[in-house]
Amino acid sequence: MFNRAVIVGTGLIGASLGLALKQAGFQGTITGIDFNPNEGSAALQIGAIDTFTLDKAAQKRALASADLVLLAVPVLAVLDWMEQLAPLLHPHQLITDVGSTKRVIAEKAIQLFNHKTSARFLPGHPMAGKESGGASLAEALLFDGAMWLFTPVADETALEQEWRAWVTKLGCRTMDVDPTRHDQIVAWVSHLPQMVSTAMCAMFADEFAHVPELAAEFEAIGGRALREMTRLGSSPYSMWRDVALTNTEPLAATLFALEQRLAHIRENLRTPELREEFARANQFRRSK
Amino acid sequence: MFNRAVIVGTGLIGASLGLALKQAGFQGTITGIDFNPNEGSAALQIGAIDTFTLDKAAQKRALASADLVLLAVPVLAVLDWMEQLAPLLHPHQLITDVGSTKRVIAEKAIQLFNHKTSARFLPGHPMAGKESGGASLAEALLFDGAMWLFTPVADETALEQEWRAWVTKLGCRTMDVDPTRHDQIVAWVSHLPQMVSTAMCAMFADEFAHVPELAAEFEAIGGRALREMTRLGSSPYSMWRDVALTNTEPLAATLFALEQRLAHIRENLRTPELREEFARANQFRRSK
Repeated sequence: MFNRAVIVGTGLIGASLGLALKQAGFQGTITGIDFNPNEGSAALQIGAIDTFTLDKAAQKRALASADLVLLAVPVLAVLDWMEQLAPLLHPHQLITDVGSTKRVIAEKAIQLFNHKTSARFLPGHPMAGKESGGASLAEALLFDGAMWLFTPVADETALEQEWRAWVTKLGCRTMDVDPTRHDQIVAWVSHLPQMVSTAMCAMFADEFAHVPELAAEFEAIGGRALREMTRLGSSPYSMWRDVALTNTEPLAATLFALEQRLAHIRENLRTPELREEFARANQFRRSK
Repeated sequence: MFNRAVIVGTGLIGASLGLALKQAGFQGTITGIDFNPNEGSAALQIGAIDTFTLDKAAQKRALASADLVLLAVPVLAVLDWMEQLAPLLHPHQLITDVGSTKRVIAEKAIQLFNHKTSARFLPGHPMAGKESGGASLAEALLFDGAMWLFTPVADETALEQEWRAWVTKLGCRTMDVDPTRHDQIVAWVSHLPQMVSTAMCAMFADEFAHVPELAAEFEAIGGRALREMTRLGSSPYSMWRDVALTNTEPLAATLFALEQRLAHIRENLRTPELREEFARANQFRRSK
């Protein structure tokens, strides 16, 4: 039974996890760790965590005595924490993460964890989030109805089973995927949409910078579709840098495929092939 | 005072206009014309129009005696109706439209209308809609809060002023734009998002056709962002064909610009230039 949890990274996802666990009936203590004291205070204030400390020795004590460590930081920071936790934690302790890419995390997990004397590690990825970060935007229902992907790298113990049960209690459906396949899938369904939105916003910033009367009315003219397509333009580089660095090839492949598809449409604006593209798109939507 | 209105095209936009006008206090009679009797019946049933006829002679009588004719059909059909209406209508009658592109419509309006013996014509474009068409999806509040663009081509009379007042009563803000500039703007804010969504859906249809277990969970894995980015994939070719045919050059230019921007991001997934693109996009979103 998990009694002592540590959430590393008390931003949007970490603080939402704290709120969601408590709402789902978690009775233990949740300690928050974040390099940014403002995020820690905000998470404390909304009740997402019970205690927060910037003191390294106190953090180490909390981690050493935790049943469950949730790494809710960008991917490269997850890798750093894995290195730090490996010598500190033991087989009766479970570490899991919410990183956006899984191949590099799974590789490091195979190397560092799930051995006779090491802690357990179950890589995970909830498909939930917002275009802006921070504990102040945290919500207990952020994961409700979402898909939580796991990329297991070892046979599982009661610890992994308990965490899977909590994820289900948060309202998530779960699916196990191979880590490399995970990264290919999320390149299509998550990373590509992000980069398209970023590209469109960056392009609009350049295109409309010198027409202030239009820039001001931009969203009113564009309507709902434009708002939706550009919403992710607010997403922070700090998180997406790690995605781009740890999923470069699959993401580049999806970007290249979309560039070619857009060129195909551009070259066929006046031919019947445009009808075929709309038919394929309509069919895809109907299948949802 | 408008007493007799005719709505040509009783699909989503036409039927919503009928509902909105009545809700805003329009007391006259609204006659609906549509080549599809199902759309006419649906519009009648929800009270968007008062009468509907497929009889050509009856349609002609309604048009000849109308104060206001609203052309709510795709752009090429608007052009056809303009040709048909020119010899039939007179200076005390106003024709307006809701076509998605305005350059070709404005050119034809200059040629056929607003002369001594011809009817009045005010080209217009409400920035509202849905990804699926049909009178059954019509809503009285579809235009509430939307921007309604006008591309006037002549000095205006009391008729144009009265229509502008109705548009305001529907809850719209209005803006006058040069027709060619209109088509450039909507290429960026409306036509490009549509083609991106169509391209992504068509690509996903190909990519995931052979992985049924993923296709089924596609939206659950992708979450809100993916749903938003692919929503317009349902849009009907019948309307967008006319957009592509009458706004080819501006739309091709925006597609080419986005292709280049995506290539730029793809080539910089591991360089600090990615940070710059996110910064530009963040700045654009903050300015909204």
